[in-house]
Amino acid sequence: MPSTFTDTEDTLLPPYSFLDDYSEGAHPQLLEALLRTNATQQISYGNDSHSAEARQLIRQHLHATDDEVAIHFIPSGTAANLIGIASCLRPYEAVLTVESGHIVSKEAGAIEATGHKTILVPGVRGKMTPKNLERVVRQNQFFPHSAKPRLVYISNATELGTIYTRAEMAALSETCRRLDLLLFMDGARIGVALSAPGNDLTLRDLVDMTDIFWIGGTKMGALLGEAMVVRSHLADGFAFHLKQHGALLAKSRVMGVQFAELFREDLFFEMARHATEMAQTISVNFEALGYELAAPTETNQVFVILPDRLVARLEERFRFYVWDQREDETAVVRIVTSWATDKLQVDKFNAWVRSETTA
Amino acid sequence: MPSTFTDTEDTLLPPYSFLDDYSEGAHPQLLEALLRTNATQQISYGNDSHSAEARQLIRQHLHATDDEVAIHFIPSGTAANLIGIASCLRPYEAVLTVESGHIVSKEAGAIEATGHKTILVPGVRGKMTPKNLERVVRQNQFFPHSAKPRLVYISNATELGTIYTRAEMAALSETCRRLDLLLFMDGARIGVALSAPGNDLTLRDLVDMTDIFWIGGTKMGALLGEAMVVRSHLADGFAFHLKQHGALLAKSRVMGVQFAELFREDLFFEMARHATEMAQTISVNFEALGYELAAPTETNQVFVILPDRLVARLEERFRFYVWDQREDETAVVRIVTSWATDKLQVDKFNAWVRSETTA
Amino acid sequence: MPSTFTDTEDTLLPPYSFLDDYSEGAHPQLLEALLRTNATQQISYGNDSHSAEARQLIRQHLHATDDEVAIHFIPSGTAANLIGIASCLRPYEAVLTVESGHIVSKEAGAIEATGHKTILVPGVRGKMTPKNLERVVRQNQFFPHSAKPRLVYISNATELGTIYTRAEMAALSETCRRLDLLLFMDGARIGVALSAPGNDLTLRDLVDMTDIFWIGGTKMGALLGEAMVVRSHLADGFAFHLKQHGALLAKSRVMGVQFAELFREDLFFEMARHATEMAQTISVNFEALGYELAAPTETNQVFVILPDRLVARLEERFRFYVWDQREDETAVVRIVTSWATDKLQVDKFNAWVRSETTA
Amino acid sequence: MPSTFTDTEDTLLPPYSFLDDYSEGAHPQLLEALLRTNATQQISYGNDSHSAEARQLIRQHLHATDDEVAIHFIPSGTAANLIGIASCLRPYEAVLTVESGHIVSKEAGAIEATGHKTILVPGVRGKMTPKNLERVVRQNQFFPHSAKPRLVYISNATELGTIYTRAEMAALSETCRRLDLLLFMDGARIGVALSAPGNDLTLRDLVDMTDIFWIGGTKMGALLGEAMVVRSHLADGFAFHLKQHGALLAKSRVMGVQFAELFREDLFFEMARHATEMAQTISVNFEALGYELAAPTETNQVFVILPDRLVARLEERFRFYVWDQREDETAVVRIVTSWATDKLQVDKFNAWVRSETTA
Repeated sequence: MPSTFTDTEDTLLPPYSFLDDYSEGAHPQLLEALLRTNATQQISYGNDSHSAEARQLIRQHLHATDDEVAIHFIPSGTAANLIGIASCLRPYEAVLTVESGHIVSKEAGAIEATGHKTILVPGVRGKMTPKNLERVVRQNQFFPHSAKPRLVYISNATELGTIYTRAEMAALSETCRRLDLLLFMDGARIGVALSAPGNDLTLRDLVDMTDIFWIGGTKMGALLGEAMVVRSHLADGFAFHLKQHGALLAKSRVMGVQFAELFREDLFFEMARHATEMAQTISVNFEALGYELAAPTETNQVFVILPDRLVARLEERFRFYVWDQREDETAVVRIVTSWATDKLQVDKFNAWVRSETTA
Repeated sequence: MPSTFTDTEDTLLPPYSFLDDYSEGAHPQLLEALLRTNATQQISYGNDSHSAEARQLIRQHLHATDDEVAIHFIPSGTAANLIGIASCLRPYEAVLTVESGHIVSKEAGAIEATGHKTILVPGVRGKMTPKNLERVVRQNQFFPHSAKPRLVYISNATELGTIYTRAEMAALSETCRRLDLLLFMDGARIGVALSAPGNDLTLRDLVDMTDIFWIGGTKMGALLGEAMVVRSHLADGFAFHLKQHGALLAKSRVMGVQFAELFREDLFFEMARHATEMAQTISVNFEALGYELAAPTETNQVFVILPDRLVARLEERFRFYVWDQREDETAVVRIVTSWATDKLQVDKFNAWVRSETTA
Repeated sequence: MPSTFTDTEDTLLPPYSFLDDYSEGAHPQLLEALLRTNATQQISYGNDSHSAEARQLIRQHLHATDDEVAIHFIPSGTAANLIGIASCLRPYEAVLTVESGHIVSKEAGAIEATGHKTILVPGVRGKMTPKNLERVVRQNQFFPHSAKPRLVYISNATELGTIYTRAEMAALSETCRRLDLLLFMDGARIGVALSAPGNDLTLRDLVDMTDIFWIGGTKMGALLGEAMVVRSHLADGFAFHLKQHGALLAKSRVMGVQFAELFREDLFFEMARHATEMAQTISVNFEALGYELAAPTETNQVFVILPDRLVARLEERFRFYVWDQREDETAVVRIVTSWATDKLQVDKFNAWVRSETTA
Repeated sequence: MPSTFTDTEDTLLPPYSFLDDYSEGAHPQLLEALLRTNATQQISYGNDSHSAEARQLIRQHLHATDDEVAIHFIPSGTAANLIGIASCLRPYEAVLTVESGHIVSKEAGAIEATGHKTILVPGVRGKMTPKNLERVVRQNQFFPHSAKPRLVYISNATELGTIYTRAEMAALSETCRRLDLLLFMDGARIGVALSAPGNDLTLRDLVDMTDIFWIGGTKMGALLGEAMVVRSHLADGFAFHLKQHGALLAKSRVMGVQFAELFREDLFFEMARHATEMAQTISVNFEALGYELAAPTETNQVFVILPDRLVARLEERFRFYVWDQREDETAVVRIVTSWATDKLQVDKFNAWVRSETTA
């Protein structure tokens, strides 16, 4: 991960950016829907008709009934994580997460600010494994001196761009239930995960295998918004948590309208497939030129090891994060594509890599 | 205040609504700006060029320099209150507020969830007075058994639609400084307050007289967003607070673009004046027909005492809150207008009140 | 209540003190038991044999089985309140208390520091009434904007020295169950309450009528320690709460040994009866001399209205709190007696009052 | 560390216990002082004359003035850690600690319950090193997405019984100041640390090199109580923190009397030297018999690797923790001695180890 944030004076981005998947605004279809519905009067704070429609459309994609899952819209991923996790726990209960988990060092201590400890579990390519999980849980049973392990946090796709297979999820879910642990999935990038070439999970599987998860809109074409899917046994009082943390928007229609568009047909996954295709193109090019990947490119993120010299040249024309500066004159670089990534720019990038490599 | 929330199945609003000032979407000019700027790539998390521009435009309206105030955009009013207040306080410090303050019973205990006690001060028409404030502060000096009174929360316009005069603010500000108290202003309705017929305060006065305040966008034509103005002595580390509470949007441009439009010229206050005019029209009609106001109509909210029979008739054609159901077959009713209120509907409303009264 | 704390340089107390019921150390029988058991080795953190014995002795006094109630020892009353209350609540749930409740302004915001709002209910002589409670609960149903009223905090004896009758408790308990509210009793002064001349409640009634309550040792002859009695439906995980708040003593035997002595026979209530008798003597004397009580003297606290001149004279020889300095040259004074109050000093005090009155 | 707590029915300890250093009550001299001072009346909540005396005696041992350090007494080590740490930090600031730190997995998430993240630093024999610290701090500079590293938590003696040398402390202190980090020392076992054969630190050094530290009474002969030493720049408002967390005892004399005895002469360190001597005797015996230590025995804790067969035999006559059960039929065993450890029992223990080894 990047260890420092380069605070830049030029807030515009002249070189094309592969920094992240939220550099652009919203998919035009979402903005048009906002315009079209703008003038009508709506009930506020989550009770607007657009949010109701979006909930039903998402439930259809989940093949889930109203009784099975409650759905709430939340403005940001950090808010989704902190509210979703805190809503499940008693004060002394702790969260288990791999070290690369977004909640560990990218959310300013938001989980701890709700009072809950995070316990680190060694990850395998960014993923939680049943074996490591069980070992760490066993090491934290000195009650009541140990905080009580109670909720497992995973991300799909992970922070390294990898994905969980159906078999991996089934094994993890079974382990959690056996150990009386809740399973929470951060779905900031669930779009690219479930539409990845190697994926065999469905949205319905997530309902069956987790206790609570969220579907990320911010990183998949929405201006803002994540959809929290809460299984019924955890749903009681959820709106209070939203309100108490300032995440219940007065004009909840803003998220409702956008999620209705994302899930009316297949727009959400169409955009995701584009993002992953763009990353694959970049990844294949790197590999063809002999560069080593730091993680397999399963979704829209490419982690590749490059010589410092090449990094410097690429930075002249493109923006991306140096994820890990090594001591041997190489660096792990992260390239992120999105629903909005321009194919032309990807081609230019690949050509530039090629020409700088063979030069 | 309404004691219960009527959870309604019909989420659409067939009768015209005077329930609140956030039933519609955004002012069209803001949506157009979002469309126009949508495709450009921007740095995320508050560092986009639109947010930078909006900050400068607001500073111009404040007649304040970069050194004097930091400005941050926050998705909701509750988030603005809880983050703004918590950012100022040590764990044992308490907030003083009048009983009708929004943070008292309309934010699900959000202030307390950050660990801070709220101490009630008797209000005068929704306003904090130096005399009552000082008395309550004196009653809470049994240290360290009393939580330490440290921050005064006020709203302008207040929750009753009343406004602070310049003299009132000056006296309150002086009292706070003398008692070593910080002064925080909730500006959810600062637009209607500063453009009210009876107002003599300026935005610059707020910089001088408070320590921290916010300018409400949600209730004045934005899809979402409030602009927090933090005096430099309290500004250190503010972005951490935002991030930790999930209020730092990845696509911060969403709020930046809208606030740039609101403060590019005078749009913010133009909308506010319309809202107040509509409320005045309604208020004048009520008074002309002999109904008693429960609070003076200084901004965009009308609190009027009506017989239950008339309330029932009005509810057939319009939506509004019954704020306080009395035992003598009357009720205090709240009518709220906004930048989007239709003059035609106001005329219909007034005519309906007239005809039902004289019938 | 005293509005300010007079920070005094002389930490010794030359004049005899009626300031509170914790100015002396422990009843000698408790110290002797600490000495007698000192050298044995014991398991720590609540698992010592003395704590086990004390739990059984208390259960006998409660006529309750192991299955009905869990019992935990806590070092201080504030810790007992904050841990006991927080252990019962989800994050958005609020506490209802009368304005004179100890948690309102005498515990430095400890309840709010655990994240929970306190909602004030007008008290009647320091007591919660079903009628006022129900009215305030009804005013806080605007969900999810109102924090959810969930737990009722009462003290017995109250902070004004008054006590609940069995009928009052039964009515309050019934109201709580009907409104889905938990009932928590702060028993810092449960000793004087249950042994008061006017009392008709038993310890067993408390088990039946509340959900959780505590028996105060600190104000009844222990060096420190309160015994929390938790009904089984709330008992799960309680030791974690203790540990997390630093209230699980390594040498838990310190509290176990003392509580075993207090409840081996009747020592706890013997001491309480002495405390109340001493207060009655003082109260009767005041009334006989024509002074008005500010609250009926039902237990070990006397609240009496005295002329400032007399207060000044009394302060030459005795220490006590001026609870409320009035503007008409009188003050409400609080006189507190305890298990350790010296009968001789009480006689001197009464004589001094008499001589100064008739002078 | 022991991974699970063996909840035992027999709360008495028939076999002699080397489980911990808090199995007995208090040093007799402390109990006698409690008896002697019991009947006098004292001001409460930290303002008693015994606490005042104890503060002065401790300041003499620190060679520090009233202006340099504030001193507060706190009932338990967990309370000392959570209150001391939280008192120093703003909400978004994080704590750095080695993985074996007591706050990591032995305090039920108490630090996180105050809202603060803990960041793990790889330890070297239980100690924080400047190099590892600086590396981890550098990895957490992605502001405001990373919580801000702000306070370094160390223990002396460490949880492995090791101690910091003066040179190590000086280097660590210098690193902290350079990186704008506060240095907090958990002194639960500061007695054995500063009186260890290998020690060259003084109490005055701790004042100079840390920002805040505490002197553990519970593990050195007191019934309860730790003395927090707060440098003046952090001392403001400390009593509020104590009160808010329920750690301000009404009868604060209980801790004042005991600490006055501990520091009137040299009793505190006399007891510590005895504890360490007993551990050395045990350690030397193990080594002489060819057993490997898991950590050097610098204070009162012995960590030794023993075959499972020997462990089983020892458990017949003595109690101790199996710290780490290994897979090769050996275990790391922890033997703890204290001020109260009986030399006769140590001799028996050593003889039993010898006979079982040579058998």
